Amino acid sequence: MIVLLGATGYVGQQFATELAARGRPFTPLSRATLDYTRFDSLLGFLRERRPELVINCAGYTGKPNVDACEDHKADTLAGNTLFAQTLAHACSAAGIPWGHVSSGCIYAGAHVITGSTRRVVKDLTTPEMRQLLQRERTAFLGFVESDTPNFSFRDGPTSFYSGTKALAEEAIAGIGQGYLWRLRIPFDHRDNPRNYLSKVQRYSKVYDNVNSVSHLGDFASACLDVWDRRAPFGIYNVTNPGFVTTREVVRMIERILKPARKFEFWASDEEFYRVAAKTPRSNCILDPGKLLQAGIHIRPVEEALEDSLRRWIPESRPT
Amino acid sequence: MIVLLGATGYVGQQFATELAARGRPFTPLSRATLDYTRFDSLLGFLRERRPELVINCAGYTGKPNVDACEDHKADTLAGNTLFAQTLAHACSAAGIPWGHVSSGCIYAGAHVITGSTRRVVKDLTTPEMRQLLQRERTAFLGFVESDTPNFSFRDGPTSFYSGTKALAEEAIAGIGQGYLWRLRIPFDHRDNPRNYLSKVQRYSKVYDNVNSVSHLGDFASACLDVWDRRAPFGIYNVTNPGFVTTREVVRMIERILKPARKFEFWASDEEFYRVAAKTPRSNCILDPGKLLQAGIHIRPVEEALEDSLRRWIPESRPT
Repeated sequence: MIVLLGATGYVGQQFATELAARGRPFTPLSRATLDYTRFDSLLGFLRERRPELVINCAGYTGKPNVDACEDHKADTLAGNTLFAQTLAHACSAAGIPWGHVSSGCIYAGAHVITGSTRRVVKDLTTPEMRQLLQRERTAFLGFVESDTPNFSFRDGPTSFYSGTKALAEEAIAGIGQGYLWRLRIPFDHRDNPRNYLSKVQRYSKVYDNVNSVSHLGDFASACLDVWDRRAPFGIYNVTNPGFVTTREVVRMIERILKPARKFEFWASDEEFYRVAAKTPRSNCILDPGKLLQAGIHIRPVEEALEDSLRRWIPESRPT
Repeated sequence: MIVLLGATGYVGQQFATELAARGRPFTPLSRATLDYTRFDSLLGFLRERRPELVINCAGYTGKPNVDACEDHKADTLAGNTLFAQTLAHACSAAGIPWGHVSSGCIYAGAHVITGSTRRVVKDLTTPEMRQLLQRERTAFLGFVESDTPNFSFRDGPTSFYSGTKALAEEAIAGIGQGYLWRLRIPFDHRDNPRNYLSKVQRYSKVYDNVNSVSHLGDFASACLDVWDRRAPFGIYNVTNPGFVTTREVVRMIERILKPARKFEFWASDEEFYRVAAKTPRSNCILDPGKLLQAGIHIRPVEEALEDSLRRWIPESRPT
């Protein structure tokens, strides 16, 4: 039996769907049943029930967006860092494997190759980088799992949200038998405030940047495959291979969904942060090579985006 | 056997001295011997050695002062919150009691009685409060253990340091069998950069505020008494009964040590924070009544201060 924490959230629901589709017995644990944020309660439960795996989809992302985390530091730390540690400790003490939904938003930028040099560039929106992106897309390589996060409390600037996610990785990697599955900007075909494709359509203006992203179903499926194949414990970037610019996503939306509205873009980073955002946003490319090497299939990003838009289900809104 | 963590620090050394004076066997654990910040290592050690008690004096206070914590958020969180949680979890899993050196600097102000109303006043430096303090000292009552911290991430403004200490209490109170011993502004008769009486003498100007404080030796002794008497697990304010203003401390220094220098005071809170400090400082009165009720003796604050100054040992400095 698999225990699922945070089963009612955006990511947790997808794990529940995927587990059900696979006919795998699982127990969604709610805090109403057991206050699993308290170590003693959680450890007692694990020792008694001995699940084969505990999956943690619980976390604090801030509403309506990560800016809210700046004003709720205790909840952000408790939800993202302290609870992740509580779970890893309890599982380790009970000898039970765990999987934690981590985040790729602990990096900024990408590895960029120019001439014979390879360097980390944090801001991919400079004129130089935009030109290079047009000219030579293969010059951009993603961060791998052994790269130290560079959008964290230790290597800022960062957002409070990203700081707590990076610190969680530091606190729990290597504790007991655990997986850290890094999700990045989830999306699928169902309109939802958390869906990247919905967000892009709803922003008054779009912020053009470069990102690796994760199809929500592909993500949950790949994470479960990691466990089913008993891939080595550790950190995995679970993103669809490749990367996209927001401008490319907008073009796909225009081509496939043919929306009535026109998309506008923020003139610059400076304008975006001055007008629309309070705390820095992570924009980065991740390399899911370790996941692929473990024999797990995940679609290229273009395919996953195109498929989601072709099957798009708009949210029914009260009229 | 008692295990002592952070044994080489300012507070840890005092516990070591006090344990030795009592003829109690103890093991100072250093990170060179065992990386006790890693849950698995710590739990393995505890299960094998089964100490009667683990005392945690390790923490991150920032150098030269708490302002440094603002720029070292990951270290501050890891040292004060994540490690406190790791220890409580490991001790709970192994069934071993623990004591954690917490801090009173998670409160601001005091309970103040005026007429028939009792209210929390965060700033005791207003003209109204200064006058009341002159006129009616008994109008000021300390925070008790059941008062929710009001100088924390949840109830700010706070410093990052205090935020992490308050969050640690929230994370570990009630986990396994544990004591949280709240220290406040330590001092004794030995000149030291961490000693409150040294700090007051070394500041270019003094910041006049109202505080409960802890004599370092009295603190360590009282904490060990709490354990020896098997007082109920939980939080204890371990301060010398009463409170002092910095101005009163300066007068005692002038009277007893007769220093050559003249003391100057910051004209206002506003001047202090503009010129000398980056992040807010906690100033508060704590009520150690629970400790006294448990039958533990601790000297009144005036007596502990006077005694320290009468036995004052200046630091020998290179000439």
